[in-house]
Amino acid sequence: MSLDNSGYSGLVLEKLSSSNIKVGDTLSIKKDDEEYVGVLMPRSQVGSDQFHVIIKLESGYNIGIKLDQGSEVNRIKAGKKKRTTPAEKEPDVKGLPTASILSTGGTIASKVDYRTGAVNPALSAQDLYDTVPELRNYSKVNAKVIMSVLSENIRPSDWTKIAHSVASEIKEGADGVVIAHGTDTLGFTSAALSFALQNLPVPVVLVGSQRSSDRPSSDAAMNLIGAITLATKADAAEVFILMHAETGDSYLHAHRGTRARKLHSSRRDAFQSVNDYPIFSVTGEEVKELRVPLLRRNKERKLTLKPKFEEKVALVKTNPGIEALTIDHLVETGYRGIVIEGTGLGHAPDRLQPSIKKAIDAGIVVAMTTQCLFGRVDMNVYRSGVELLDIGVIPCEDMIPETALVKLMWVLANTKDQETAKELLTKPLAGEIDMRSEESEYVKGLGGD
Amino acid sequence: MSLDNSGYSGLVLEKLSSSNIKVGDTLSIKKDDEEYVGVLMPRSQVGSDQFHVIIKLESGYNIGIKLDQGSEVNRIKAGKKKRTTPAEKEPDVKGLPTASILSTGGTIASKVDYRTGAVNPALSAQDLYDTVPELRNYSKVNAKVIMSVLSENIRPSDWTKIAHSVASEIKEGADGVVIAHGTDTLGFTSAALSFALQNLPVPVVLVGSQRSSDRPSSDAAMNLIGAITLATKADAAEVFILMHAETGDSYLHAHRGTRARKLHSSRRDAFQSVNDYPIFSVTGEEVKELRVPLLRRNKERKLTLKPKFEEKVALVKTNPGIEALTIDHLVETGYRGIVIEGTGLGHAPDRLQPSIKKAIDAGIVVAMTTQCLFGRVDMNVYRSGVELLDIGVIPCEDMIPETALVKLMWVLANTKDQETAKELLTKPLAGEIDMRSEESEYVKGLGGD
Repeated sequence: MSLDNSGYSGLVLEKLSSSNIKVGDTLSIKKDDEEYVGVLMPRSQVGSDQFHVIIKLESGYNIGIKLDQGSEVNRIKAGKKKRTTPAEKEPDVKGLPTASILSTGGTIASKVDYRTGAVNPALSAQDLYDTVPELRNYSKVNAKVIMSVLSENIRPSDWTKIAHSVASEIKEGADGVVIAHGTDTLGFTSAALSFALQNLPVPVVLVGSQRSSDRPSSDAAMNLIGAITLATKADAAEVFILMHAETGDSYLHAHRGTRARKLHSSRRDAFQSVNDYPIFSVTGEEVKELRVPLLRRNKERKLTLKPKFEEKVALVKTNPGIEALTIDHLVETGYRGIVIEGTGLGHAPDRLQPSIKKAIDAGIVVAMTTQCLFGRVDMNVYRSGVELLDIGVIPCEDMIPETALVKLMWVLANTKDQETAKELLTKPLAGEIDMRSEESEYVKGLGGD
Repeated sequence: MSLDNSGYSGLVLEKLSSSNIKVGDTLSIKKDDEEYVGVLMPRSQVGSDQFHVIIKLESGYNIGIKLDQGSEVNRIKAGKKKRTTPAEKEPDVKGLPTASILSTGGTIASKVDYRTGAVNPALSAQDLYDTVPELRNYSKVNAKVIMSVLSENIRPSDWTKIAHSVASEIKEGADGVVIAHGTDTLGFTSAALSFALQNLPVPVVLVGSQRSSDRPSSDAAMNLIGAITLATKADAAEVFILMHAETGDSYLHAHRGTRARKLHSSRRDAFQSVNDYPIFSVTGEEVKELRVPLLRRNKERKLTLKPKFEEKVALVKTNPGIEALTIDHLVETGYRGIVIEGTGLGHAPDRLQPSIKKAIDAGIVVAMTTQCLFGRVDMNVYRSGVELLDIGVIPCEDMIPETALVKLMWVLANTKDQETAKELLTKPLAGEIDMRSEESEYVKGLGGD
């Protein structure tokens, strides 16, 4: 890592420069009779003020210290490239299970991205491993950067690439695969991998972070260590999302890859299982099974790789202003599938029905989910649902809209036939549909009273 | 109400017909040494089996009884039209506050809709009042049917009609207005009325039901009574949604009209406040204030009616497969506003940026919300957010996507100027935006451990 101090500005930059301190150097800060010693971390947040400096304490925890004119800043020693060579590392990890970490980008990999003045994916998986030296007590780690993309830019073709990379790690003997990924579309990618990687022999764990690793409150290290722990220890072989279970640093939840959703824009426990419960919790080194996984770990099992996705599938959320021309336009521009995020039990305005019928008659697969997110569609209760069923709209049961979108993309890459697509879409393949999910699988606010 | 028994079929119809029992008649059912006496209720569910009969017990509770060949069914007395004339009713309600009930359709008004074999809006507000005689202990009720629409078919022009009707009831002296409405788009309508009805002198309470009133588990009566209680008793003057606070029949929550969302397709407590807490709870006749309302009740206050909405505003939910042509098409077909339901803190794929810029340059207002639903957008943290801000995308803070859509429709009906629209959109008008909402306003599942 070539680090400089360009992430800082104003007073902080002045003080750092005058002592010739660069990011990565160990420094001491004396302020108000206190002395702090640590490694200078880069700043990557847009709008960082000019007064705070971030250092990593020996404890591994990052803190922000506000400098004033009287603060004394001294360099203790220059930073050096800490990367251990495989030769040095090998003795420590002999006999430990092997986890492959595949880095795709996102906040969890955003540490050294301070030059642009905003958080960008840049950190390699090896850098992550270097950042969290404890990892080598848990597992032998093979770290690779397979792409460097903010997750809002991840496309279905990227899912294909990731699936191939996972398959290749498994082929090479990994006991578990960890994928570091931005949280924005983590739920879409986990659903995609759940369908693309069938008959998994080992677990595949997607992990992200809600606060970048140079922020004092970062969840990156704990999530990553937890992901490696789960990947190497869990007696399961399916795709999971592992993230904080609550806002503190007490424990993590592993959600089924087809059932998790980012439900909060900033909280560390943003991910929750929808119409399902978490499958494992991870507390420190302890992995606790909360629900029976779909498959047990078995390295003899042969992976079935089905990595293709049809991109021409649209997600349409109905609302009181929606016009039929929205559907017509999808038909005209070659879409092969439409997932409607309808209201309530799976309804759409009556005025869309002629266009939906035209789409289905043209061979397009139209599926219904609910924008409520929680609960299942049941199109047999009300007239408008019954009419949509008659037209040929496919009810997606308790599948969340995002998973239904990804699954239909996957289904349409695997069959050209409308009837086969319908069957595949409604058949549970990766825990994405439960014909008997219960209303108790719901989230509730504090209520305020 | 002219009631017959056509909602039943098979064995039940046979037994009812042979004793000449019609819906509305009081009957006794003897089965397995038990005798049940009650009023025959209509059946309206699609797929009702042919063996269950629904009767309303004297307690007011509906139960379903499964008949078999040996069951004995007898008519005790014929149903009669129970509607009391205003002359008969007046003495009971003298001095009580007046609530206007405006019925728009939906499940809460679906009781007599059994002829079609599915639930359709049909019941008049007066029928609702007749169904729940306890109402006259609480309030004088003026009931009107203003439309009869399943809520998935409600359009912005219907919000205008409803707003006019509410204004007219307030002008005529109502102490509170209750609107019976389907739950599917109840949150959209409540947001619309929150902007259309400014400076309210009295509360406006939207209410729905998740189970139709002829089902044993119906929440219709409790919700409606609660809505009238809130409308006449609460010391507040804003738009609320009142629904069950939990699955049992213990109490109700009044959510701010701009903050509530249907988060479950079937649970009675489907509605929850997002990025906010409920404002009142209603337990029986008791109304408890949980948060300070925006305005206190004051019948001297003069309502400002701004009932217009621009229909050409689209809601676009980003996803890994979304194409720029989706945005281009909206520009080409005359849309004036676009609300993006982006990922995370308010991001959209980079590949959409040229089209979004083209839209804004063409005078279209483009606003950003988050598909996480909970939490706020903060487009200053990551590069892709910063770039969208630079293009002119408007961050909607902690406003939920549905409310942002409705508000932009309302804003664009009130101004033609892009800059004024931007100001209005981000200025809190009805509690829809809080610059300091907290992360604690979140919902959490049981977690499974």
